[in-house]
Amino acid sequence: MGTIVIKFGGSSLSTTDKIKQAACRIADYKKKGKEVVVVVSAMGKTTDQLLQLAGEITENPAKREMDMLLTTGEQVSISLLSMALTEMGVPAVSFTGWQAGIVTEKVHSNARIIDVKTNHIEEKLAEGKIIVAAGFQGVTEDGEITTLGRGGSDTTAVALAAAIGAERCLICTDVTGVFTSDPRYVPKARKLPSISYDEMLELANLGAGVLHPRAVEFAKNHQVSLEVRSSTENEDGTVIEEEVSMEKNLVVRGVAFEKDITRLTVFGLKNELTGLSSIFSVLAENQIDVDIIIQSQTDGNKTNLSFSIKNKDRQAAVNVLESQKETIGFENIECEAGLAKVSIVGSGMVSNPGVAAQMFQVLADENIQIKMVSTSEIKVSAVIAGDNMISAAQILHDTFNLGTVVEKEKIQ
Amino acid sequence: MGTIVIKFGGSSLSTTDKIKQAACRIADYKKKGKEVVVVVSAMGKTTDQLLQLAGEITENPAKREMDMLLTTGEQVSISLLSMALTEMGVPAVSFTGWQAGIVTEKVHSNARIIDVKTNHIEEKLAEGKIIVAAGFQGVTEDGEITTLGRGGSDTTAVALAAAIGAERCLICTDVTGVFTSDPRYVPKARKLPSISYDEMLELANLGAGVLHPRAVEFAKNHQVSLEVRSSTENEDGTVIEEEVSMEKNLVVRGVAFEKDITRLTVFGLKNELTGLSSIFSVLAENQIDVDIIIQSQTDGNKTNLSFSIKNKDRQAAVNVLESQKETIGFENIECEAGLAKVSIVGSGMVSNPGVAAQMFQVLADENIQIKMVSTSEIKVSAVIAGDNMISAAQILHDTFNLGTVVEKEKIQ
Repeated sequence: MGTIVIKFGGSSLSTTDKIKQAACRIADYKKKGKEVVVVVSAMGKTTDQLLQLAGEITENPAKREMDMLLTTGEQVSISLLSMALTEMGVPAVSFTGWQAGIVTEKVHSNARIIDVKTNHIEEKLAEGKIIVAAGFQGVTEDGEITTLGRGGSDTTAVALAAAIGAERCLICTDVTGVFTSDPRYVPKARKLPSISYDEMLELANLGAGVLHPRAVEFAKNHQVSLEVRSSTENEDGTVIEEEVSMEKNLVVRGVAFEKDITRLTVFGLKNELTGLSSIFSVLAENQIDVDIIIQSQTDGNKTNLSFSIKNKDRQAAVNVLESQKETIGFENIECEAGLAKVSIVGSGMVSNPGVAAQMFQVLADENIQIKMVSTSEIKVSAVIAGDNMISAAQILHDTFNLGTVVEKEKIQ
Repeated sequence: MGTIVIKFGGSSLSTTDKIKQAACRIADYKKKGKEVVVVVSAMGKTTDQLLQLAGEITENPAKREMDMLLTTGEQVSISLLSMALTEMGVPAVSFTGWQAGIVTEKVHSNARIIDVKTNHIEEKLAEGKIIVAAGFQGVTEDGEITTLGRGGSDTTAVALAAAIGAERCLICTDVTGVFTSDPRYVPKARKLPSISYDEMLELANLGAGVLHPRAVEFAKNHQVSLEVRSSTENEDGTVIEEEVSMEKNLVVRGVAFEKDITRLTVFGLKNELTGLSSIFSVLAENQIDVDIIIQSQTDGNKTNLSFSIKNKDRQAAVNVLESQKETIGFENIECEAGLAKVSIVGSGMVSNPGVAAQMFQVLADENIQIKMVSTSEIKVSAVIAGDNMISAAQILHDTFNLGTVVEKEKIQ
């Protein structure tokens, strides 16, 4: 009998009615003869409410105590969902992170899973019970409660699926699958029946938001078959696995975009070697994520350096760099806020060197100025003015024919 | 260096401001050079909110899942209180029930503590930290989360105090100590500086409400020195221990009372032997607590039986008994609701047989009819009309001179 892992996020569990709906969907899988492990997040706004309580006590809570506080959120969800399943006549048992055997490294608020002890889960599965496990949380070997950081529940689901050898890990969410682009802005966007880990990884990192990149990476490393699907609609989602059976050679698979980006330029950096490392060290120490980095030569002694960060980090980035102006050794800083990043993703790009050029040409034809560029083997990103983001995404979606279902036979 | 355990109830932690106040009081003890273990309940209305969520899902939640749900309440309190202490510069660390080593029997919703593994607590105390432990909860040897039932946090505090050999266990609550009677109704009531376990046990069982009887029993069995005191005022409370140094021989120590009592009389019970046991078995199976029981002979074959229960259980008691009328074998049932119980308590009664007679005489002088009586070595209880409860309590308080501080020398 096959085992599946099903993950429900907080918005799919925000009320007791939604919890009952989720229970119905879970019961359907059980009726189909599957062994089922469910992984859940905290209900809707619970985490925000807990954060507010902590904020009333202190501005600098110890991370250990924050983990202690926040992990209560999933514990409420698992108990209520287990009750809802049992009420429907489907025996279920809830497990906290430590009861589910999720062992993490000794780090609070952003721990990595180092082991999954499945004996407890396997024992209850053998009794015919559905396991409802708390996502996002684990325990160190010393018995300290930890959390896995953003996207933690996705990671828990994938880790459990890998550990128990589940045939598939379903990520149930607000959308019905992974789309060629965001349908709210690109009306022709359509759902992809399948996509590779690497493509999903680029899309996830590019802000597509359906699935946390860390979970995708974990799934790739452990060859866990993922499916992103609706938590309410009963239609096939998007399967993420190594071998993409359909549309294998389609060059571009999706267009992702992300707004609220700032380009920050450091002028007159004196020593390229130490300057570069000290700039990015100081930003990392202050939890400022840097995305695209471009370095340009000005004269023999000095360089200019541009990089993109999120708008919200702009003031902090400027402050920390200015405070170390002497040590780093630069002349001045300039910011340009309100930018956006548009990216095309597809594993077929590796063997199609003309794709990036085609992208730049299309944007140029529309008078959209490209301010920064970044490429990987399977994606090309361009930073442009925020106002151009939607139209750029729509044009790229049309250019690469993403709105059309392509028959396997027709692909070159 | 002496160690103390301090317990705060939910009403002393109902807001983040109150949590900060509690942290101040705890910090004071630390400054006095004590090692401190704090035990807390869930914040104010948290338990009610969680119960409501469960009620929206099912009318019959599994006890295991209710324990899973409710234990999140204390987990929120311990993390917030630890943050508040740390914010004040007093290092603190929070422990759930299982982290604090509270091992219980394998029963959900009303488990008894069978072991306390103190190594984790002692390690952190040795580091100079305050331990903030979740009350009310424990873990079985199989790693199942359990709760201790009503008064569970008091029991946790006493169990930890016993296990680590604390010099005292402070129960911080809404009142400043144990009084000779309820000051809201008996204006002359005064705080007792000390009281014995047995006296406290009778008072606790009689509805005095400051301390759960189970915790008092645990304290008695393990000779833990308890002190009931205010969670906000800095004044001495009431010490509960074996040897009462002051007022040792005072005959009566307190007057307790409790309203909303029903007397239920079963007429014409045919078989005294099987009838009695089947009546009280069926009531116990239906969670109906019976207090005073009186049996009277009518003729050779039949007896009448009266017992007191809480008003709220009246309908249920009548229903279950009527439904088994044939099996038990009785003629009919009569109820008298709206009664009250007034009790005098004092360990000196053992050697003063006249005390009960004095009580009955005083009540008779006031035309207060006694409907049922129950006695133990250290208490006398009388069931009377509810309307007479307050005046009876006041008269008895006066009769036994409880409003006057008695010098040790003056006692007979």
